[in-house]
Amino acid sequence: MTRTAFRRSSLFASAALVAVVSGTGGFAQTAPEGHGDGPAAAYQPSMTTLGELNVEIPGRKPGDPVVTPSEYQRANTIYFERCAGCHGVLRKGATGKALTTDITRESGFELLRDFITYGSPAGMPNWGTSGELTEEDVDLMARYLLLEPAEPPEFGMPEMRASWQLIVPPEERPTEKMNDIDIDNLFSVTLRDAGQIALIDGASYEIKAVIDTGYAVHISRISASGRYLFVIGRDAVVNMIDLWMESPDTVAQIKVGSEARSVETSKMAGYEDKYAIAGSYWPPQYVIMDGDTLEPLKIKSTRGMIYDEQTYHPEPRVAAIVSSHYRPEFIVNVKETGKILLVDYSDIANLKVTEIEAERFLHDGGFDSTKRYFLTAANARGKVAVIDTKEGELVALLETDGQTPHPGRGANLDHPVYGPVWATSHLGDDTVALIGTDPEGHPDHAWKMVQQLYALGGGSLFVKSHPTSEHLYVDAPLNPDAEVSGSVAVFKVPELDQEEPEYTVLPIVEWAGITEGQPRVVQGEFNKEGTEIWFSVWNAADLTSAIVVVDDKTLEPKHVIKDERLITPTGKFNVYNTRADVY
Amino acid sequence: MTRTAFRRSSLFASAALVAVVSGTGGFAQTAPEGHGDGPAAAYQPSMTTLGELNVEIPGRKPGDPVVTPSEYQRANTIYFERCAGCHGVLRKGATGKALTTDITRESGFELLRDFITYGSPAGMPNWGTSGELTEEDVDLMARYLLLEPAEPPEFGMPEMRASWQLIVPPEERPTEKMNDIDIDNLFSVTLRDAGQIALIDGASYEIKAVIDTGYAVHISRISASGRYLFVIGRDAVVNMIDLWMESPDTVAQIKVGSEARSVETSKMAGYEDKYAIAGSYWPPQYVIMDGDTLEPLKIKSTRGMIYDEQTYHPEPRVAAIVSSHYRPEFIVNVKETGKILLVDYSDIANLKVTEIEAERFLHDGGFDSTKRYFLTAANARGKVAVIDTKEGELVALLETDGQTPHPGRGANLDHPVYGPVWATSHLGDDTVALIGTDPEGHPDHAWKMVQQLYALGGGSLFVKSHPTSEHLYVDAPLNPDAEVSGSVAVFKVPELDQEEPEYTVLPIVEWAGITEGQPRVVQGEFNKEGTEIWFSVWNAADLTSAIVVVDDKTLEPKHVIKDERLITPTGKFNVYNTRADVY
Repeated sequence: MTRTAFRRSSLFASAALVAVVSGTGGFAQTAPEGHGDGPAAAYQPSMTTLGELNVEIPGRKPGDPVVTPSEYQRANTIYFERCAGCHGVLRKGATGKALTTDITRESGFELLRDFITYGSPAGMPNWGTSGELTEEDVDLMARYLLLEPAEPPEFGMPEMRASWQLIVPPEERPTEKMNDIDIDNLFSVTLRDAGQIALIDGASYEIKAVIDTGYAVHISRISASGRYLFVIGRDAVVNMIDLWMESPDTVAQIKVGSEARSVETSKMAGYEDKYAIAGSYWPPQYVIMDGDTLEPLKIKSTRGMIYDEQTYHPEPRVAAIVSSHYRPEFIVNVKETGKILLVDYSDIANLKVTEIEAERFLHDGGFDSTKRYFLTAANARGKVAVIDTKEGELVALLETDGQTPHPGRGANLDHPVYGPVWATSHLGDDTVALIGTDPEGHPDHAWKMVQQLYALGGGSLFVKSHPTSEHLYVDAPLNPDAEVSGSVAVFKVPELDQEEPEYTVLPIVEWAGITEGQPRVVQGEFNKEGTEIWFSVWNAADLTSAIVVVDDKTLEPKHVIKDERLITPTGKFNVYNTRADVY
Repeated sequence: MTRTAFRRSSLFASAALVAVVSGTGGFAQTAPEGHGDGPAAAYQPSMTTLGELNVEIPGRKPGDPVVTPSEYQRANTIYFERCAGCHGVLRKGATGKALTTDITRESGFELLRDFITYGSPAGMPNWGTSGELTEEDVDLMARYLLLEPAEPPEFGMPEMRASWQLIVPPEERPTEKMNDIDIDNLFSVTLRDAGQIALIDGASYEIKAVIDTGYAVHISRISASGRYLFVIGRDAVVNMIDLWMESPDTVAQIKVGSEARSVETSKMAGYEDKYAIAGSYWPPQYVIMDGDTLEPLKIKSTRGMIYDEQTYHPEPRVAAIVSSHYRPEFIVNVKETGKILLVDYSDIANLKVTEIEAERFLHDGGFDSTKRYFLTAANARGKVAVIDTKEGELVALLETDGQTPHPGRGANLDHPVYGPVWATSHLGDDTVALIGTDPEGHPDHAWKMVQQLYALGGGSLFVKSHPTSEHLYVDAPLNPDAEVSGSVAVFKVPELDQEEPEYTVLPIVEWAGITEGQPRVVQGEFNKEGTEIWFSVWNAADLTSAIVVVDDKTLEPKHVIKDERLITPTGKFNVYNTRADVY
C-alpha cells in the first residue's frame, strides 16, 4: 500500500467530525465520571475546564460515525494496551507514525481500518489478520482515531503512595535463601496478556512460580545482590519479588503512572540494592524508590524542550533506563526530547541531573561488553547514540543504515575482523547493524557501523548472543508473514568475515508444534552458562503458546516448554545475565 | 475587611457563569485570532483543541455580566502588567492569593471590585484609590476574574530567535570606552510605565541616556567586566546595553517569553561576560544566552514536581537568579515548586543541574557580605533559605517571623552584637528580620533570626545598606496609607543593641515637593562610594515623579532629580554595587 493510496482513500472529508455520544468519556479506569448529559460532547475537551459544559459540534451531520461512551472507554483501553507504546498517549508519534486528528481525518476511516487489520512491513502489526483484535474492535479503533485523544490525569506522589503496598516488610522477610532454586539460572518470563510473570528453572524447565503483576510486563531487572526481581507492566505497576522466599513472590508493589516501560536498580559499588527507579510514558516522569520497599522517594518530570529545536514537548516519555557500573547514576533515555539523563542518585534530596543532547526518539539499548559504554537507539531517526558512562558524555552518534533500529539491549560479538562489536536489528527492514565498540584495540572502527547483515525481514525486535556463543540470533516477530514471524535467523560469528554472510533459519513455531493462530517468535535469551537459547512462541491469549529451547552448539531444538499457564509469553530474563548485563 | 466579610459579599451564586461574547479572546498580543462567530464562547477553552467550536453555556442567564472580546484583550493586558506578578499567569497564587474561578466566583464581583479599588494592608495595592486604574478598569478586572484564565502560548527557540536582534555586532562595537562617563557610578533607573531605563550619573545627577526597553524593567544586571548592562522587562524583553559607546545604547535585544523577571550574567573567573541567563514567568523556563550577543543557546523548562508534595505544577516560575562567585553556576529560584537550581554553565550542551529542595514560593534574595551564601525568601511561606554556593547545598531554612518577606537582594549589616547579619523587610507587615550570616565568627547565631525590628508598616519592598554606611533603610511603597508609602524608615546600625531600636522617618515625598497623586517611595540604592542613597518617588505616569538623593551621614536631602523624562521611576541599580554584589 503506497503513501499516495493512503492519502486518497478517505471516507470522510477532512473537515468531517465525529462525536462521542452523551458523555465526556475519559482515560481508561483513571478518569473521573463525565458530567455531560446533553446530546453531544466531542473532542474530549479538557475535563478540568470543560467538565460541566456540553459542547455543540458545528458541522456534525446525522450519520457521521459515532463512538458511545462505553466504546470510547474500551477503545482507550485497547489504544493504551496496543498502540500507545509506539504512537504515544497524545498520539504525537515516535516509533510509530503520528496519529493526530489532522492526519487521521485526512486518511479517513476505511484506510485506518485496513492499516490496523493488515499492518505494514515497516513494523505496524497486523492486528486484524493475526486475530489479536476482532473485526468489531478494528472498526472501533478506526473510528476512535478520528477523535481527539484524551489526556490522562497526572500521577504524582499522592497517587503513588496510595497505590504503594508493602506486602512483606524487610524485617519479616527471610534472612537466608529458603528454597533450593538455582536463582542465577532462573528465567523471568513475561506472560503478556495474563498480566503475570512465570519463573522458570533454567535446568529443569519447570515453572517454579506464576506471579500476578501489571499488564504486559515490559522488562524484568535484578537487584545487584541477585535477590530481588523487579518487573514493570505497561500499566506502570511495579512488582518487587523476593527470590529468597520459599516460593518467590511479590513483597512490594506500586503503580507509578498510567503507562510505563522501564525499571532498574542501583548497581554502583556501595549502592547495591539501595534504590530502584521506574520511568513512565505517562505522566512523562521517573521516580526513584527505596530498593528494599519500593517506597516512592523522588519524582522528576521530563517535560521540557526537544534537544535540537528547543520547542516544548508535553510528553517526553521515559524509555530505557540502565544503571551505571562506574558512577552512582541511572542513565535515563527521554524519548521525544532526545536527551539522555545521567541521574546522580548519591543525594536524591539534591538531585543532580546531567542532560546530554543526543537524538530524538531514544528507545532501548544496552552496554558494550566492557559495560562502560551505553549504546542506545534513536529509533525513528535511524541512529545509535553512544554514552561513555565513566566520563559521562556522548562519544558518538551514528546512523545504522536501516529503518527504525530496535536493539533491545543489543548483542555483543567478538567479530573476526573488527573485534568487539555490538549489534542491533531493525523494526522497519531486514538489516542488522554491527558497530565497533573497542576504542582501545580497534580505534579505527570504534563507534562506526562496520558491517550490515541481512536477516529474515522487517519487524525484528531482538538480537541475541552470549560471550560463550559463536552465534548471533535475530528474530522478526512483528513481520506480517507467518513464516517469517515464526522463525529465527542465526549467523555464525566466525563467518562474519565473509562478503555476504549467510544465516541458518530455525523454524521455531514448527518445532513448537503449534499450528493454530500466527504465533510470533520473540526474544532469544540465553541460560546462565550460555549453552542454550530460549525463544518465546507468542500466540493469541486463547491459543497455545510455548517456549522453545535451542542448543546453541547444534542449533537443534532441545526442549519445548508447554503449559496451560504459559499464556502469551514474550520477554524472558535470565537472572544472572540480566543482573550482570551479559548479552 | 475580614475573611468572613470577603466570603459573604457575593453578588453571584457560586455557580453563576459569565461569558465572553462572540470570540475566543486570547492572551495579550500573542494569541491567534478567535474563530468563534456564534453567540457565545466562554471559559477561554484551550484554543488548540476548541478553537473551532462554539461553546454553549448552560445556566447562563440574560443579564449575567459579560466581557466583550476587546475588553477581554484589555483585561489580559492589565492582568499581565499589574496582577500576574503576584497572582500567577494561571492565577494559582504565589506572593498574592490564588484567583482561580472557584475562589473568585465565591467572592463575587462586588468584593473583587472593592479589593482592587482599596487594596489591603497585607500587600495588595490600592489600584483604584491610587489612580493607577480607572473605575472602569477596576470594574472590568472584577468581571474578568470571574472568567477562566487564558493560557498563553509556548515560547521556544523559534520564537526567541525570531525576536532576537543583534543591533550592533561585537566586531562593530568600540574597542575602548568612547565616553567620559564614570561607568561604575552610573545608575540604571527603571522608568516603569514608559518602558525605558534612564542612565543617571552618580556625581552630577545628569541623565546621560534614556533607552527604550521592555515594559516595567524589573532589574538591571552588569556583566563581570562592567561593560554591558542587561535589563529585563516584565514583558520578557531583554536589552543588552554597551556602556562603552559614545552614547550608551542597546546592542542586542531578545524576547524570552511573555512574562519575565530575572536576568544575570556569568561571573565565575574564566567565564566573565561569557553567558547571560534570563528566567521567565511564562513559559516557565530559563534560557542561557551568549554574553556578547544575547543569541539564545539553551532553553530549559522548569515544569515539574513541587518539592514537598511531589505533585505536578504547570507553572513553576523563575524568580531571582544570581551568579555564583565560587563555581561556574547560575543559582535559579523556581518559585512554585520550591526548588533552587544550581545550573552549571561550564558545558551547556550537556547541562548539569542540581535541584535543591528548599521551600515553596521562592522569590528574591541576595548574597551575604562574603558573597559565599545566597539568602532567598520563600515569601508566601514566611521563610528564608540559605544556600552555600561554594559547597552547593542548602545550609538552612528559617522563619522570618513576619508576613511575606521581600528582601530584594537584602541588606548586609555589621551588627553590634551578632556580627555580620542580613536583613529583609516584609510585604505583609512592618517587621524587619535580621539573620546571622557568620558561621565562623558567630557560629551560635549563624542562619538564625537574631533580631526583629519594627518599621513604618506593611507593603515594604526593599531594605538597603552599604559597607560604609551605619544605616539600614526600609521602604513601604505598597502601604495604602500615603504618609507611610511616601516615607522611609532609617535604623542606626550601632544602636541595634538596644531593646527596641527606634527609627528616623525620612519624608521623602515631602522633600520631593510633590503634592499630587500618591507617589510611592521605593528602593533605596547607594552610590558607589556609599555616601548617598537614592530613593525613587514613583507617581502615576501622568504625574510628576522624582528621585531624592539623601546624604547617608546627615540623613538630610541632598538633591532632587526631576525631569519630564523621569516617568514612573522604580528600581535603580548602581553599576558598581550591582556588579560586585555590594548591598
